[in-house]
Amino acid sequence: MERFSNISMAVVRRLPKYYRYLGELLNNDIKRVSSQELSKITGFTASQIRQDLNCFGGFGQQGYGYNAEELHREIGKILGLDRLYRTVIIGAGNLGHAIANYSSFDKSGFKTQAIFDVDPKIIGEKVSNVEVLHLDKLESFIMQNDITIGIICTPKAYAQDAADILVRGGVKGIWNFAPADLKVSDDVIVENVNLIESLFTVSYLIKEREETNSKKR
Amino acid sequence: MERFSNISMAVVRRLPKYYRYLGELLNNDIKRVSSQELSKITGFTASQIRQDLNCFGGFGQQGYGYNAEELHREIGKILGLDRLYRTVIIGAGNLGHAIANYSSFDKSGFKTQAIFDVDPKIIGEKVSNVEVLHLDKLESFIMQNDITIGIICTPKAYAQDAADILVRGGVKGIWNFAPADLKVSDDVIVENVNLIESLFTVSYLIKEREETNSKKR
Repeated sequence: MERFSNISMAVVRRLPKYYRYLGELLNNDIKRVSSQELSKITGFTASQIRQDLNCFGGFGQQGYGYNAEELHREIGKILGLDRLYRTVIIGAGNLGHAIANYSSFDKSGFKTQAIFDVDPKIIGEKVSNVEVLHLDKLESFIMQNDITIGIICTPKAYAQDAADILVRGGVKGIWNFAPADLKVSDDVIVENVNLIESLFTVSYLIKEREETNSKKR
Repeated sequence: MERFSNISMAVVRRLPKYYRYLGELLNNDIKRVSSQELSKITGFTASQIRQDLNCFGGFGQQGYGYNAEELHREIGKILGLDRLYRTVIIGAGNLGHAIANYSSFDKSGFKTQAIFDVDPKIIGEKVSNVEVLHLDKLESFIMQNDITIGIICTPKAYAQDAADILVRGGVKGIWNFAPADLKVSDDVIVENVNLIESLFTVSYLIKEREETNSKKR
């Protein structure tokens, strides 16, 4: 398979959207799609779409459009979705529970193997058939169970400690929900889900809309 | 205050990061910051930062840098954070609980007034001092309590119904955690938090890192 280094993160972040929409087309038995049609569904411009997909060698043919199945499969490969990822969740609070119960992750090949916490009251419980273990066991569990991704759902104050253990255990990626800037070695990737930044976008857009409306009046 | 229409969403999405980092600088009693220093903290290039902040009239002075307090306050205003937002959460599952318990939202001026669900077992309970009410009461609650933002934490299948009620009630924005493309009237803004898209970025980056490493060897 080809390598695609130096692709901008802006492009990378659009790929899951293409992947999802193409999956929906396939579910509706639509096998062929033009960049114009993709534009209507995704909201990206057709030229943006062509440019994005060209980054990966391009799968379209002039006058025909894209083969939805092939494009879906290839984008899946590019996203690394052609294999399984064994994951652990750190923090068995509400967010940890929500993540463990989220069936789409499992369906896409992300398999939660255990949840870790320090609260003795919940150690040994099961969440979505996955056992809650004590944090003390995290490092050895990662090593023995070939864990690739650690999902941090702890409060901010415990996030760096959790990350340190995950890195020592040998995970390759951390999906971080704690509002903390984690310091990890260069060979571990970190993807932050910063909810408050998303919420601030809501307030921005509400304010901007109100100003536009009051201008119109 | 000035209007800032036609600002690209890419810029808008960087503003909460500036806001957060500037807040941290202020907490550490740092009052002045250059675009180079901001670049080191945020990971954006200094020229990107200057360009972004110029969109809003620019607050820096050559040779001095930015006044951190002023910049923090102005970005807060641009983000609409100089006022309170009354919110409701739809869906009292794990995710709804997690959002209700997230104290940063409250501190930033987003005040949850009620949580709505249809499960009779939890109606009347309290989550973080906020009552769980029956979904039947949502529309009138929004009207009577001046609710601006609805936060959808339902399963995918119920998300559009929830959105329809929120819109009828008169919210201005919807923060949507359900993996569904909501259809709402043009005057309501929707911000989606698509967790699976974020997770796919993790798998992409892990794969890309592995390919780069195997190239080096």
